[in-house]
Amino acid sequence: MFEQLGLIGCGLMGGSFALALKKAGLVKRVVGYSKSPSTTDRARQLGVIDVEAPSALLAAAGADIVLLAVPVAATESTLKAIKHLVTPQMLLMDVGSTKADVVQAARRALRDQIGSFVPAHPITGREVSGVEHADVDLYTGRQVILTPTERTLTAQLHRAEDVWRALGCHVSSMSPEAHDASFAAVSHLPHMLAFAMISGITAQPNADELLALAGPGFRDFTRIAASDPKMWRDILRANRDEVLAQSRVFKQALQTLEEAMQADNDQALEDLITLASHTRAHWRMGAPRKHKDH
Amino acid sequence: MFEQLGLIGCGLMGGSFALALKKAGLVKRVVGYSKSPSTTDRARQLGVIDVEAPSALLAAAGADIVLLAVPVAATESTLKAIKHLVTPQMLLMDVGSTKADVVQAARRALRDQIGSFVPAHPITGREVSGVEHADVDLYTGRQVILTPTERTLTAQLHRAEDVWRALGCHVSSMSPEAHDASFAAVSHLPHMLAFAMISGITAQPNADELLALAGPGFRDFTRIAASDPKMWRDILRANRDEVLAQSRVFKQALQTLEEAMQADNDQALEDLITLASHTRAHWRMGAPRKHKDH
Repeated sequence: MFEQLGLIGCGLMGGSFALALKKAGLVKRVVGYSKSPSTTDRARQLGVIDVEAPSALLAAAGADIVLLAVPVAATESTLKAIKHLVTPQMLLMDVGSTKADVVQAARRALRDQIGSFVPAHPITGREVSGVEHADVDLYTGRQVILTPTERTLTAQLHRAEDVWRALGCHVSSMSPEAHDASFAAVSHLPHMLAFAMISGITAQPNADELLALAGPGFRDFTRIAASDPKMWRDILRANRDEVLAQSRVFKQALQTLEEAMQADNDQALEDLITLASHTRAHWRMGAPRKHKDH
Repeated sequence: MFEQLGLIGCGLMGGSFALALKKAGLVKRVVGYSKSPSTTDRARQLGVIDVEAPSALLAAAGADIVLLAVPVAATESTLKAIKHLVTPQMLLMDVGSTKADVVQAARRALRDQIGSFVPAHPITGREVSGVEHADVDLYTGRQVILTPTERTLTAQLHRAEDVWRALGCHVSSMSPEAHDASFAAVSHLPHMLAFAMISGITAQPNADELLALAGPGFRDFTRIAASDPKMWRDILRANRDEVLAQSRVFKQALQTLEEAMQADNDQALEDLITLASHTRAHWRMGAPRKHKDH
């Protein structure tokens, strides 16, 4: 049970965390700050936060749990802004989609206070953003990956695990580097491909006619292409090398499919599609990894 | 109002059509045939068809409306099998995802009877197949593209439009070639990319760990990768040249994104993502094309 959540960033991710923590009865008070005062104001009106703070520092003041839910590129400056209020008793987390850059930013910004920081990546999201889409169930049943550093305090790591589990999440840990390599494959690359797919259509003179014909397959395939541009610019930049490596793997797989088509090799084409189809048909989201959970 | 629907192929698409036609009160009797007798049997048990036919020819016998809902590669042999029962009074349609090959097959198979044939592509589907997934609402609110040939009888074209409209569909017409070029962009390419995306993951030694981490973005992006392999082998083969042309457009767009990342050109990267994001965010499925509906 926490006395006070300091919420820095009252958007979709932060707002949903505040709502879920309140609903679970895990926090008495939420003090929130957003860069845009109108967002903070709306968050209070919607009951997402109880008190508006005029700065990140004042949102962290008096808090025993602080959640950073800001664009990953703003991590370092935000941590610097609150640094001298960070204590070993405070649980400090983020929710960023990349982790190596976040950990580096935290090392630079927090220095000796880094023990309180537990980098976290909840595997959830929406193609819409903003506090008005905050959803008390955004995290329910989702995975949360924690990427503690060698200096993270065990006590705070365990508290972080407890908080996310209390919200109905499956919690596991890995290194920031392993995290970024994995999510390049299963999240960042799909986003890049969805952006490229839409770009390819808009580059064609009859783009409007093409889009008017698209159906439910296109709808689901491209849903993530509507994601927040600045957030995804930052993610693709922060995890550039891993994303480009995964793009090479993808392009090789695409070329193999194309070669089967060009050679009229029906059996090879069918075999390639069958493997993909069976793999996807048997996949279940959030199926826990065997023997790997921490 | 029709007396008898001859349903050739009692799977997801055919079964859903029969259910919808019955619910709309447009048909008195459905006589069904599937290649697999157990499918035909199940279709009758599920109330999708009223009478089992032991052959495609017997399913067409006495029917005033016939729907071919078989893999596109089976179109020619199926039409040949029923050809001598096709009359100018009969409305004969298919539901295939490619149209140029279907029209060519129909020309070869039907010859002078081709006037009764109205090639149709309802823009709907599921990643699952089989009569047990037949859904009375599969077509509701969807677009249907008709690709009549120069020999299609106007009376049958109008009846086809009326039937699909009665099922709640938005009906438009285009040439088979324009259809295939368009759907290469908005349907066939996305499927190929989804197959390649899964192939790229399965090619990696830690594929199981990667898949275990994937979340809702991956789920929606790859849903279509679970589609029926033989059906998609046939579609990619039938529409090969258009799909490969669209793949070239896509790869150019992907390369542009990669170059912005490699050059650390944040503004270019953001601009590319912003265009894609705005385009997708403002897209609505099935928004009718202005001044183009027939």
